[in-house]
Amino acid sequence: MALKGKDIITLKDITKEDINFILENAEIFEEKLKKEPLKVLEGKILATIFLEPSTRTRLSFESAMHKLGGRVLTVSKDEMTSLAKGENLSDMARVIEGYCDVITIRTPIEGAPKMIADRVSVPVINGGDGAHAHPTQPFLDLYTMKKEFGKLEGLKVAIIGDLKYGRTVHSLVYALAMVGVEMVFVSPEELRMPSSITKVLKNEFGIEVEEKSELEEVIPEVDVLYMTRIQRERFPHESEYEKVRNIYRLDSKILKNAKEGMKILHPLPRIDEIAPELDATKYACYFSQAHNGVPVRMAILAGVLGKI
Amino acid sequence: MALKGKDIITLKDITKEDINFILENAEIFEEKLKKEPLKVLEGKILATIFLEPSTRTRLSFESAMHKLGGRVLTVSKDEMTSLAKGENLSDMARVIEGYCDVITIRTPIEGAPKMIADRVSVPVINGGDGAHAHPTQPFLDLYTMKKEFGKLEGLKVAIIGDLKYGRTVHSLVYALAMVGVEMVFVSPEELRMPSSITKVLKNEFGIEVEEKSELEEVIPEVDVLYMTRIQRERFPHESEYEKVRNIYRLDSKILKNAKEGMKILHPLPRIDEIAPELDATKYACYFSQAHNGVPVRMAILAGVLGKI
Amino acid sequence: MALKGKDIITLKDITKEDINFILENAEIFEEKLKKEPLKVLEGKILATIFLEPSTRTRLSFESAMHKLGGRVLTVSKDEMTSLAKGENLSDMARVIEGYCDVITIRTPIEGAPKMIADRVSVPVINGGDGAHAHPTQPFLDLYTMKKEFGKLEGLKVAIIGDLKYGRTVHSLVYALAMVGVEMVFVSPEELRMPSSITKVLKNEFGIEVEEKSELEEVIPEVDVLYMTRIQRERFPHESEYEKVRNIYRLDSKILKNAKEGMKILHPLPRIDEIAPELDATKYACYFSQAHNGVPVRMAILAGVLGKI
Repeated sequence: MALKGKDIITLKDITKEDINFILENAEIFEEKLKKEPLKVLEGKILATIFLEPSTRTRLSFESAMHKLGGRVLTVSKDEMTSLAKGENLSDMARVIEGYCDVITIRTPIEGAPKMIADRVSVPVINGGDGAHAHPTQPFLDLYTMKKEFGKLEGLKVAIIGDLKYGRTVHSLVYALAMVGVEMVFVSPEELRMPSSITKVLKNEFGIEVEEKSELEEVIPEVDVLYMTRIQRERFPHESEYEKVRNIYRLDSKILKNAKEGMKILHPLPRIDEIAPELDATKYACYFSQAHNGVPVRMAILAGVLGKI
Repeated sequence: MALKGKDIITLKDITKEDINFILENAEIFEEKLKKEPLKVLEGKILATIFLEPSTRTRLSFESAMHKLGGRVLTVSKDEMTSLAKGENLSDMARVIEGYCDVITIRTPIEGAPKMIADRVSVPVINGGDGAHAHPTQPFLDLYTMKKEFGKLEGLKVAIIGDLKYGRTVHSLVYALAMVGVEMVFVSPEELRMPSSITKVLKNEFGIEVEEKSELEEVIPEVDVLYMTRIQRERFPHESEYEKVRNIYRLDSKILKNAKEGMKILHPLPRIDEIAPELDATKYACYFSQAHNGVPVRMAILAGVLGKI
Repeated sequence: MALKGKDIITLKDITKEDINFILENAEIFEEKLKKEPLKVLEGKILATIFLEPSTRTRLSFESAMHKLGGRVLTVSKDEMTSLAKGENLSDMARVIEGYCDVITIRTPIEGAPKMIADRVSVPVINGGDGAHAHPTQPFLDLYTMKKEFGKLEGLKVAIIGDLKYGRTVHSLVYALAMVGVEMVFVSPEELRMPSSITKVLKNEFGIEVEEKSELEEVIPEVDVLYMTRIQRERFPHESEYEKVRNIYRLDSKILKNAKEGMKILHPLPRIDEIAPELDATKYACYFSQAHNGVPVRMAILAGVLGKI
């Protein structure tokens, strides 16, 4: 299939056909697993190289591999900390490719997954590289929306929070544009979506996205509130962080004018963006969104390994 | 079966029927494994979340899962250390439940396993929470005694060492009471069994346990010497620890009046409580006791997953 | 078979027949794996106990186990750091043997693998103990040479770098002597092969190996350049290290007089001993050498577990 042998480094490696293919196969796997254990990737090995912790990403990839009958090699951060220079990371990856059939890598070094993908012959999946990209995250966002609404095209999604430094949303907006989802951006002035991204949306997709500062006014008109946390570590100065933290917060009061079927998504972890009182409501969709990482990554792994 | 879907947080979650059920199935699994690899839990995933190291508990659970054909996700301490607040641990657990079929958790925070069990839908097994409980440990103690003596009822067991802070023995005494094992407690005055526990033994089981300070005088009359180490970290002050460490120590000299078939158990690790010269004697049972963690945890995992 | 139940602590545990047996079975496994997943070690568990990080050794053992259908328990360094005293490491190993079928251990403590092997009944494979031994490494060196040249006997190999402190080469030279490979040693005066080793070569194998200081003059006459790095941590004083680091370095210029089919091997990681410009040349063999760790360790694991 089209995905076979492909590296997944940024969303630019992905076509609309790839998205549909992954979402369809994620659903097929999820259905099949209800009936019996699968052996699609029996004899295959995934190596997860995580140079910074990311419990959700690592565990959902590893769970996906296990659920397809494959095996996992977990390379610990400790084992890689002696690797300061990019050159040595490259050597290490060229060794590890001999032990496995596919690599997922997470690293604070932007560009490292691409460099490794260029040097090894097994498929490399970027599990997040600094502020650059985290290209498999949007698939679970799309899969979640499709499961909840039965379709993607024509949905309206508000993307809220740190749109400047938020790696997750940079990948997400391209994916949403590709599948015809309407967007509105909500952020403080200081954290607006970078113009490099809004330009691509305009020039490549013909989309001009409305930018707002007030959360309350967009709530009644959207199908999805996509919340993100404002991460202290992305700010050069503490004072800039303090100005904007806690600026957007969902609770039952603010949601009183929400649409009947509205859903809240969040890539997690949350800090205070979503009040725990919402967890048991029909709006809350963030935990099942995280769980959807498994079928989606099953489809991605089976796809790049040529098994679907 | 009765265990299906159950959380195992404290021994209070367990009935005498559960105990018999687990011990019987542990034995069945152990026999079957001598003939062929098992696939009882094929397609099932155990997540082990260990916020403090516990090699024995984690590895025996993981070994048990592998021996039943299941898979394991190991969540490392590093990945969880960013989690200071109970709220976030709860969010994390609600994410992880989507990646697995059963969770074993070890944490220094008393009550955390219960909180998590209340929030997730997969079975949660407490692998030890601070000084509170470690409810699967007594099963391997009981299983070991049953294997060695062919029965449990009517055995006489001395429990020796730190009975005040020792989490292991707090779980153990309830289990022994349930199956009709006679007990004697041996500890310094400062480390007596808490009255909260002796009261339950008296009120619920009608048992009044003799308390002694001298180890030597109980040795001739018991079937099992259950040794525990006195853990420095349980004491508020170093000076209190120094008074009582090394107060009980088994060697061949002190055992000269022991019963012929007497067995020494110890939850390990030992410090100096058992002289290495005893390792090769017929009395030593602590290593096979540790090994019995595997069949017992096979039965517990298969039980809560509804596969026996 | 001859290997069944054997501990592999130093190369002295290995006969020439063992070497041939392992190399042959490594090749058989590698061929079989091209056709289908293997289940030779289904139901068996390998415990890897790594008290210092060694990504290559641990991962290749774990990959080998997975490729034979077996399972892996990874004991982390963190879990073992509370173990200061040899006695406790011994207790821990006696516990872990009950959870697994074979143990691989890496430790900075020379002699620890031997001590453990003497105390447990499952086979123990030394994955490196300080400056003492790393007995499975030579197998992948031999396997690589045999794959490249179709034979071992009569090859001429230059072993270059730190021959005094380099654990790898101490194991290697015995293995090469056993299979009839001709050697030449290249090192600075300060880093000559220890006389304890050259004596064994002379007395047991009747071999007197030429010792040189200049790399350039040996290049034209050898089939293999076996490079090693000079490790800072092996030197008592920084000044001694500074004198000899970077003394030998391969690049395309120095190789202009190399034999047509010459191959460069290196146990990795490299620092500056091999210029990256050589990576894409026909000489470079160090990455496939690392990859050969998998079939070789498959044969070793299946061998000690009596499955070949």
